[in-house]
Amino acid sequence: MILTVTLNPAIDVTYHVDALTPGATHRVSRVDERLGGKGVNVASVLSQLGEPVLATGLLRGGPHGFTPIAAAPRRTVVVTDGRDATGFWEPGPVVTQEEWDTFTADFAALAASARVVVLSGSLPGGLPDHAYASLIGLARSAGCHTILDTSGAALTQGMHGGPDVVKPNTAEREHLPTIEGNHTVVVESHGADGLRALGWRARPPRHIEGNPTGAGDACVAALARGLLHGTAWPQLLRDAVALSAAAVASPVAGHVDLELYQALEPEVILEEES
Amino acid sequence: MILTVTLNPAIDVTYHVDALTPGATHRVSRVDERLGGKGVNVASVLSQLGEPVLATGLLRGGPHGFTPIAAAPRRTVVVTDGRDATGFWEPGPVVTQEEWDTFTADFAALAASARVVVLSGSLPGGLPDHAYASLIGLARSAGCHTILDTSGAALTQGMHGGPDVVKPNTAEREHLPTIEGNHTVVVESHGADGLRALGWRARPPRHIEGNPTGAGDACVAALARGLLHGTAWPQLLRDAVALSAAAVASPVAGHVDLELYQALEPEVILEEES
Repeated sequence: MILTVTLNPAIDVTYHVDALTPGATHRVSRVDERLGGKGVNVASVLSQLGEPVLATGLLRGGPHGFTPIAAAPRRTVVVTDGRDATGFWEPGPVVTQEEWDTFTADFAALAASARVVVLSGSLPGGLPDHAYASLIGLARSAGCHTILDTSGAALTQGMHGGPDVVKPNTAEREHLPTIEGNHTVVVESHGADGLRALGWRARPPRHIEGNPTGAGDACVAALARGLLHGTAWPQLLRDAVALSAAAVASPVAGHVDLELYQALEPEVILEEES
Repeated sequence: MILTVTLNPAIDVTYHVDALTPGATHRVSRVDERLGGKGVNVASVLSQLGEPVLATGLLRGGPHGFTPIAAAPRRTVVVTDGRDATGFWEPGPVVTQEEWDTFTADFAALAASARVVVLSGSLPGGLPDHAYASLIGLARSAGCHTILDTSGAALTQGMHGGPDVVKPNTAEREHLPTIEGNHTVVVESHGADGLRALGWRARPPRHIEGNPTGAGDACVAALARGLLHGTAWPQLLRDAVALSAAAVASPVAGHVDLELYQALEPEVILEEES
């Protein structure tokens, strides 16, 4: 089983309006609302692929798999008028020490029946920068493979837990600490230009039009599936590039175009770097 | 006791941002959130004045005094950057026949211990245009005075219930039906220029700077208090103008500047129209 962790999930709200005019009042013609957050998207893609997956994390009300916290989740409101998408990112909740302790215990119990643990996204307020390092330690003790997909201090501090895979972008890659004894594979993301890891480079065979939101989460979903099934590395990169591209082609984050995925997968360009 | 009815309450959300730029993503520095809606604001002002009041209506979760419905309340999101306020009004919920029947029964029970009933704001989806006329009929049977503060079809159809007082603005006033046998007092609102009713005109003694949102609700609160205590009409208008102006001076809807209210009240200009 793959366990995805989303410590700072979001309610993704989309407002459809005729035209966005600063200073005016707008009647919203349609409201779309879904639970978002990178780990939630990863779980959603894995579920679409038919893989055994459970999403956990911190969320008010404690829906299935999540540990309840008192504070409301942040909302990410996107106003779209067919031309522009204008976003408003709320600050996240603050988690108490007691809530974090409860989650840590819940997480250890879930990790005992998992084989791969994916840790995605930002940390909410109240948690230390080394929060991911602690969870990676627990997951490793339970015999799980671990993937860490975050940024900033949560990433640099999280590295101390010794994750099996991290997926920084080029800018984050430069600031990644080298930690003695770590065997972490660094999968460097180049957006539409594909991925680099372990001396290999994988690129999509052609440009895919669409919505890049969620492509990184589809990439992580492919990596998690590969670790679960023991897929060898260059092949794993090929798979991750194809699944990312299939996510770009789907308008909804956490969803991939399965037909395109199957068509692209053998066409991904794999090169060994000299 | 004064009973205020809010059939379509809103969650008023305010986002504070540095500068609103269409097409950009904004970090929201502060989120203010409160339960709003005209009847809720009226109850809040009456409570500040020390009057016995209960707010009822339709709201998911059925907080104190409200009848629960399944659908989520609409949100009114205002993005403020210190220069402009840009609003996004969600469409409201749809109420089922069963929920409306339950509310009607709850309302009849509450009206039995009330002396004044205030019906404010728009109707949510699923309710007939004559919804207010039905509630006014029930309130009158229970011996209550009634005030109706709404617009459009909800107002014109609501008039058939025979409310004691309506508070249209000038545009709405023109389309108000004259119904035989009705003794409805029409309090015509002229915004910053005051009120007209029964051949009297009441005006604030000077221009009050501030936020006009909520001034109409303070006006209705004054009228409701006057009906409860049997205040005579020209004096009631004076009171309503002073309380509206005191609401303009307060930045928060549903709150009045009590000191200003007491200072303005004797200074309100009352004129009999020839």
